[in-house]
Amino acid sequence: MNQVLVDKTREYRELVQKYISAYLEHDEPRLLYEPMRYALESGGKMLRPILALVSCGAVGGNIKDTLNAAAALELAHNFTLVHDDIMDNDGFRRGRETVYKKWDANIGILSGDALLVKAYEALATAPPQYLPRLLREFNNGILMVCEGQAMDLEFEDRSDVTLDEYFQMIDRKTAQLFSLSCTIGAILGDGTEKQIKALQSFGSMLGYAFQIQDDLLDILSDQETLGKDIGSDLQADKKTFLMLYTRENASEKELRTIAKLMQKKSFAVQDIQQIREIFQRIGTLDAAKGEVKRALTAASAELNQLEENEFRSILSSLLETLENRTF
Amino acid sequence: MNQVLVDKTREYRELVQKYISAYLEHDEPRLLYEPMRYALESGGKMLRPILALVSCGAVGGNIKDTLNAAAALELAHNFTLVHDDIMDNDGFRRGRETVYKKWDANIGILSGDALLVKAYEALATAPPQYLPRLLREFNNGILMVCEGQAMDLEFEDRSDVTLDEYFQMIDRKTAQLFSLSCTIGAILGDGTEKQIKALQSFGSMLGYAFQIQDDLLDILSDQETLGKDIGSDLQADKKTFLMLYTRENASEKELRTIAKLMQKKSFAVQDIQQIREIFQRIGTLDAAKGEVKRALTAASAELNQLEENEFRSILSSLLETLENRTF
Repeated sequence: MNQVLVDKTREYRELVQKYISAYLEHDEPRLLYEPMRYALESGGKMLRPILALVSCGAVGGNIKDTLNAAAALELAHNFTLVHDDIMDNDGFRRGRETVYKKWDANIGILSGDALLVKAYEALATAPPQYLPRLLREFNNGILMVCEGQAMDLEFEDRSDVTLDEYFQMIDRKTAQLFSLSCTIGAILGDGTEKQIKALQSFGSMLGYAFQIQDDLLDILSDQETLGKDIGSDLQADKKTFLMLYTRENASEKELRTIAKLMQKKSFAVQDIQQIREIFQRIGTLDAAKGEVKRALTAASAELNQLEENEFRSILSSLLETLENRTF
Repeated sequence: MNQVLVDKTREYRELVQKYISAYLEHDEPRLLYEPMRYALESGGKMLRPILALVSCGAVGGNIKDTLNAAAALELAHNFTLVHDDIMDNDGFRRGRETVYKKWDANIGILSGDALLVKAYEALATAPPQYLPRLLREFNNGILMVCEGQAMDLEFEDRSDVTLDEYFQMIDRKTAQLFSLSCTIGAILGDGTEKQIKALQSFGSMLGYAFQIQDDLLDILSDQETLGKDIGSDLQADKKTFLMLYTRENASEKELRTIAKLMQKKSFAVQDIQQIREIFQRIGTLDAAKGEVKRALTAASAELNQLEENEFRSILSSLLETLENRTF
């Protein structure tokens, strides 16, 4: 990662974290506010607020005007994580217990709800002239995330999910929030409609690449780097790009081998190795990497519609870094 | 109930129902939008939107200007119901299965989330000049409901909850949303600060009375009228006004009798009868009815701060009707 990007993203993360903390400074009831702070304090990559700030700068705005909205995006993102972890039975995230695992499902539901309300609270501090449009974009974006999660849940009970349906699902579940982050930054930076549209598409392509990378990392990363079990998507029979591509392209024999491996309660190192080899042989890994590359190239093309400035450069560096991310 | 009130509330319910339906006209994913429609189609009393409309009229506004916000309040109320039913394991509401029972907890979480987003969507259509304040009130109100539910959950594991803590809990969990409904109506009706404040307190007192009545109906109503099992609060060991008052005022022997009854898996008619008799003897029922009466009288006093018009009369009639409600 280039040093400017490292320094800038750290600076932005720390800035946004302060704004987020200010929204969570409540004492009572502890059963509500402790899990909310817990969900946010692990930090994470904070890509969405960073995208909002840098998008604001890329259209010539002052990034300080986007700090509350950036906090809103991270609060909303964590609302989706806290609820999704209950629905997906995910006990670990970022190397520690998820909210519902540390407390229980009821506390997960409730603290997730309150995080969404806090997100709206942060968003509502925007200058009034922007509020109607910001709310329209925000409501639509969060609703799309709910739609994506509903599709993901529906996929669980189906064995005939197509790659095309998968793309529709990740567009809603992942790409929309990236796209929303860029859009909100561009609106608050007083961007032109053309600039807003370019950043909206940029965010969407970025999110799309990010999700397919997530699918890849589930099998290519190692546990320590990833902060959760390797192969957990596979074991949960998640309809990921890898599995759907494999189903459409593997031989009967290869599918039987994978099906047998997936029945195991936990994966040994050699199981993961074997799955990787099969995915390599079928071309699944190359296909996924190709999709990621294509999406990042499309994202880059959108950036070229903006005038050059230091913030556009940061977005470019971000693209390069994401191409090689390991967690 | 007087005929004007019957006719007017029916008219308002039908009007608001149309607005609500318009926010739920999505086809896909069905797994998201069907449960959302299901939650809203049972109708219910729709007290909160009615309060918003009539409050708007009571300060001299045009109730048509409040229809979207009224829809927002009912959508938000149902968001809280769908999630609370999961947390409280309530399988029945308004005489039919709750969302999480008909589908599952995951669908309950997700469709509840989307109902809240739809509530914000409806609220965001308000004239821009009102939006910052409306959002502030709305965010605060919904957050209070989350706080109240957190207190309620916390009470579950405690045997030393006081009546004072109970009042704090119902103020957040129930009274706030009634109060918010009146406040929003008064704001959109362009009420003066004095009018807004009077209606805010009116709503709060009304909600307070409403909740203690709910506690009473759990033991005094019959299943058919109530649409759910009689004594379900007692069986779930809910910290209701009735139980807390009884704990503070009953003899050891009476407490042992009640504790024994509460262990039963289901109540027979004679069990309910016995509990009613104990509550009557201790003075619990009279104390609860006294609290309801006091709150409704305070609500009525707030109305006297407003000038007389047909909408203030409707609010007065509503108070009288609520005093005698059976469900």
